[in-house]
Amino acid sequence: MIQVGIIGASGYTAVEAIKLLLRHPQATVSVTTSRQGAGGSITDLHPQLTGRLHCTVEDLTPQQIADRCQIVFCCLPHGTSAQFVMQLQDSGVKTIDLSADYRLGTPALYQRWYGEEHPDPRRLGQVPYGLPELFQSQIESSSLVANPGCYPTSAILPLAPLIQEKLIELEQVIVDSKSGVSGAGRTPKQGNLYCECNESFSAYSVGNHRHQPEIVDILERFTGNPCQVIFTPHLVPMDRGILSTIYVKPRSGVTTNQIRDCLQSFYDKHPFVRIVGHLPSTKYVAHTNYVDIAVRENGPFVILLSALDNLIKGASGAAVQNMNVMFGLNPTTGLLDRD
Amino acid sequence: MIQVGIIGASGYTAVEAIKLLLRHPQATVSVTTSRQGAGGSITDLHPQLTGRLHCTVEDLTPQQIADRCQIVFCCLPHGTSAQFVMQLQDSGVKTIDLSADYRLGTPALYQRWYGEEHPDPRRLGQVPYGLPELFQSQIESSSLVANPGCYPTSAILPLAPLIQEKLIELEQVIVDSKSGVSGAGRTPKQGNLYCECNESFSAYSVGNHRHQPEIVDILERFTGNPCQVIFTPHLVPMDRGILSTIYVKPRSGVTTNQIRDCLQSFYDKHPFVRIVGHLPSTKYVAHTNYVDIAVRENGPFVILLSALDNLIKGASGAAVQNMNVMFGLNPTTGLLDRD
Amino acid sequence: MIQVGIIGASGYTAVEAIKLLLRHPQATVSVTTSRQGAGGSITDLHPQLTGRLHCTVEDLTPQQIADRCQIVFCCLPHGTSAQFVMQLQDSGVKTIDLSADYRLGTPALYQRWYGEEHPDPRRLGQVPYGLPELFQSQIESSSLVANPGCYPTSAILPLAPLIQEKLIELEQVIVDSKSGVSGAGRTPKQGNLYCECNESFSAYSVGNHRHQPEIVDILERFTGNPCQVIFTPHLVPMDRGILSTIYVKPRSGVTTNQIRDCLQSFYDKHPFVRIVGHLPSTKYVAHTNYVDIAVRENGPFVILLSALDNLIKGASGAAVQNMNVMFGLNPTTGLLDRD
Amino acid sequence: MIQVGIIGASGYTAVEAIKLLLRHPQATVSVTTSRQGAGGSITDLHPQLTGRLHCTVEDLTPQQIADRCQIVFCCLPHGTSAQFVMQLQDSGVKTIDLSADYRLGTPALYQRWYGEEHPDPRRLGQVPYGLPELFQSQIESSSLVANPGCYPTSAILPLAPLIQEKLIELEQVIVDSKSGVSGAGRTPKQGNLYCECNESFSAYSVGNHRHQPEIVDILERFTGNPCQVIFTPHLVPMDRGILSTIYVKPRSGVTTNQIRDCLQSFYDKHPFVRIVGHLPSTKYVAHTNYVDIAVRENGPFVILLSALDNLIKGASGAAVQNMNVMFGLNPTTGLLDRD
Repeated sequence: MIQVGIIGASGYTAVEAIKLLLRHPQATVSVTTSRQGAGGSITDLHPQLTGRLHCTVEDLTPQQIADRCQIVFCCLPHGTSAQFVMQLQDSGVKTIDLSADYRLGTPALYQRWYGEEHPDPRRLGQVPYGLPELFQSQIESSSLVANPGCYPTSAILPLAPLIQEKLIELEQVIVDSKSGVSGAGRTPKQGNLYCECNESFSAYSVGNHRHQPEIVDILERFTGNPCQVIFTPHLVPMDRGILSTIYVKPRSGVTTNQIRDCLQSFYDKHPFVRIVGHLPSTKYVAHTNYVDIAVRENGPFVILLSALDNLIKGASGAAVQNMNVMFGLNPTTGLLDRD
Repeated sequence: MIQVGIIGASGYTAVEAIKLLLRHPQATVSVTTSRQGAGGSITDLHPQLTGRLHCTVEDLTPQQIADRCQIVFCCLPHGTSAQFVMQLQDSGVKTIDLSADYRLGTPALYQRWYGEEHPDPRRLGQVPYGLPELFQSQIESSSLVANPGCYPTSAILPLAPLIQEKLIELEQVIVDSKSGVSGAGRTPKQGNLYCECNESFSAYSVGNHRHQPEIVDILERFTGNPCQVIFTPHLVPMDRGILSTIYVKPRSGVTTNQIRDCLQSFYDKHPFVRIVGHLPSTKYVAHTNYVDIAVRENGPFVILLSALDNLIKGASGAAVQNMNVMFGLNPTTGLLDRD
Repeated sequence: MIQVGIIGASGYTAVEAIKLLLRHPQATVSVTTSRQGAGGSITDLHPQLTGRLHCTVEDLTPQQIADRCQIVFCCLPHGTSAQFVMQLQDSGVKTIDLSADYRLGTPALYQRWYGEEHPDPRRLGQVPYGLPELFQSQIESSSLVANPGCYPTSAILPLAPLIQEKLIELEQVIVDSKSGVSGAGRTPKQGNLYCECNESFSAYSVGNHRHQPEIVDILERFTGNPCQVIFTPHLVPMDRGILSTIYVKPRSGVTTNQIRDCLQSFYDKHPFVRIVGHLPSTKYVAHTNYVDIAVRENGPFVILLSALDNLIKGASGAAVQNMNVMFGLNPTTGLLDRD
Repeated sequence: MIQVGIIGASGYTAVEAIKLLLRHPQATVSVTTSRQGAGGSITDLHPQLTGRLHCTVEDLTPQQIADRCQIVFCCLPHGTSAQFVMQLQDSGVKTIDLSADYRLGTPALYQRWYGEEHPDPRRLGQVPYGLPELFQSQIESSSLVANPGCYPTSAILPLAPLIQEKLIELEQVIVDSKSGVSGAGRTPKQGNLYCECNESFSAYSVGNHRHQPEIVDILERFTGNPCQVIFTPHLVPMDRGILSTIYVKPRSGVTTNQIRDCLQSFYDKHPFVRIVGHLPSTKYVAHTNYVDIAVRENGPFVILLSALDNLIKGASGAAVQNMNVMFGLNPTTGLLDRD
């Protein structure tokens, strides 16, 4: 059994990771840490784990954690995370960083969008981006993986093959995304209170969300082409799920069917990406590691619709998938109905 | 007091209209009709009206209705509505049609999008579209007004001044709209069940929603320019509210500030349109007749965000506003905090 | 116009009070204060007030406030509130305290349930409880009113007449109450986050909620009889509304019809209390000052169901109603559809 | 592998059963039937099953079904179900009836509460009630099991041990229950529309819900004592989950701790029943087969709080648990995190 440590165990991605690992046939949760909950039981933080995981939440150093795990899921906030990850890497333990710290390719890009110097600049650009559908071989051989952002996963998966195959115009891709509230985390903030979000729909961070450069950077990394993406996130009154509505212009002569076929053949061997005929709904992918993608046409535009569960394929499911790849298991282990 | 008849009183727009009229200082509900509820009290259909409106729901002919009202709000489904409206007009009673029947400008357009011949083709193109902010003088002098669709109101109000002033490119306007479920009406359908909509976000009618030609037709009617609009509606798990995220390209040399200024000065005298600095939320306009519009920029695009309550400014509030105009009252009568 | 000051203007009860006052024909908001928002516009705290109230949020002393108002709505947290109210009362301005500070009848009871000494013990027992349906004459002549708790209003109104008329057994009244999340206020706490409350239903403070002694104390004050009430609150994933399901045992020989008749005749002259035939729903009273009460029977028990909007009849609507009474207006002024 | 047939595959319990069976290590879905969806793919009815179950929905006779399955989950409406079950039983296939048809013990009781004669009266009273925690040995040896109602499960599990051990008074047990909307099924009805349920909380069927006699009948069957239960169901704006707040009076001299100990020791060997210290929430048991039960005290009453997922432990999870027992597997097979 793979011994897994969960660092920053108090939040939503942590508990989802734990629940997935409880079902995983070849992994087990051996350590959970959290400053907030240290000394108590994991069930104080997450009562739903009662009778399912018997584990004291601890406050440990990276070295102590490394001694007791073969892989660490680092669920700390950005900034804090890289400082922890550096030490974990020095201790030689495999690490999946669920924060944004190792996603962008250069220290300059990080500084521009996160407003501070990167604590571990030399690793940037070397850490594979944890979408096994695109970067599997790099993930296999790395001891550190940058787990993707939830919005970027919903945008990159439908766009990457189309850009790679030169089927769409590069200069005006619009990604209009909508997310459930769990994407905002479990830290109390007025904007995330029930009565602020319920019966409310609004955009946020219009024109300046950090996932816009992430989408662009990864698409460029994968395709080798310069890209431009206009990304607008919105908050939906629901717990979980992201739907992205993506407007692209096919290059001259390219048909909607060619675009659909391209996606179908690209993802043919990747069971978590379903190219579906129906219009995707967050409800159809909730609590699963699937991404549903549909293709439609409207005037000169092709519209790509993608749906995923932001806490699973957009966070903890992707982490487990990455773990599987890093340990040479089938990527789907523990993530599909039956193994 | 203006005597108002509510035809098709069982639905959501009807009860919202009734509640607005109960607060209106110069109007009163004199007739309610509904096949479904005929013979019973209006409170059987809408228990929230207990003690507020004492009224038997009836099943009456257009002539009988016309005899007892000065204006009729027709809340019937499209197709049925026009047949009723024709007879109401023959009886000489002012009418606001809340269905889609008189919104499009030509019988051919209607047939193409609604799949059947229009029952009253000669009136098409003559009935003013009920946005007093754009068509007040026509509404003043008409005995029939086509109350706008909820999505079109959220798209037309921000776009019309910009197109009229030639500030934006016409060939690629993208309107990505999100609506609460009440827009789907009160008729039981599986897709509108609580457990289908809750914790679900999805697009629908992608590339073929009837509000797309309505938006285009009215923008062309108002501005005299040929327009193209890509419109995608989505369903949000909430009762009420529409937010539209509209992507436009400024014409060469036009700045975001010019676009904001244009909207501000156009709507300066129209109290229901608020050009706001914050990002609009459906929650901030719920239960009011306001439309909030904000302007942002992202790369080569300007993003317009508009929010309204689909049952008020998107339906029954607009109807009351139109009624006010048709009777020479201040358009805001009964619709703002204080009259 | 009555000049009203809103103290503690950042929360949900404050904004609801403001919206009600904006519609009130004889009152106007003249001062708003909040430490958090001081110096900014009221619309920074509540964007929905854009264009509706032009008012700078201030940080003022009680005396400064008293100089500019005829009545103050004090929306501060308990403990803090009494300290402010004492000074307001010394300045001679009428005050409605929306906190719990003046509801209980004795300093000992306050200390037992709120865990601290009351800052203004001598006023306890003299301040009328702000349910005009029960205590109108005391409210009329008082310069300070204790605005009722939301749960207690839903329990006291159905129970008080039945106890007064000796129709039910006193020793085992069970009040099982369910509230929307706005009752928990706008201060960020993990338990009130969207993702904690949504798709969640649970009880809280079972056996030790402070509204239990409030219900008992007021029922005893009104009826002169010793009462016992078992009260259990629950949190419902919705913004607003309380439904209480109340189990009572009729005294020997008393019929369910007698109980219904008693309520009907008691509230005959009180338009905000509707004794309804249908089963009450929070949705039917949302955004209104109504309390709906229904009576049912099941074996040896009679079940009273009451519904109200916790922010209106359970808070700010009651405050406006009390203000009306304190100024000799009709209690319904500004609170019904038409005045 | 156990071949399972799902009869009436279009509803919510059916799709939950399918999803549980897809994870089950020793069962497989071999047949799905539905009049509504016959001829199409199961993914037309439930798009979330795309890529997970490849199965044509059929319209088959009981005999045809029996030929292809070892056990049938019958998800038809009551009345219809018994007629189908009779024929399945004649064909010798094991059957779990998820309707109410075989739950009550006598034809007279069925007729009184369901308003029609029972189609298969001689089996009533002989079919075990599918709560393995209470009736495991009967279930083991039966070819037909009556799957319990969702509300009754939440009430019977906490009450049965206490009544058996004579710890509580029998004549006044109050069960105040709250359920998510999925309990109402997937058939379109106005009352189950999103906009009717959202932001709404209300009781329904007060004093006359069919689960009241079910609770009483099963408690009497298990304990041999005559019982009386007052049951009130309420509808919560959420998809899934039931919370029951149960008011009982301990018999003279019985303490709250004795009641908690009794439950703890009774359920010690039953992993799906968790006697918890925290207050149960529907969220903590969602998507699991757990029932959480807590014990509190308030004056002379002890309050039992129980939470379960109405679609899992309240329906399809219980069905899988019963299937396990009927086939001699561990009851938890396929239902806990790891098998």
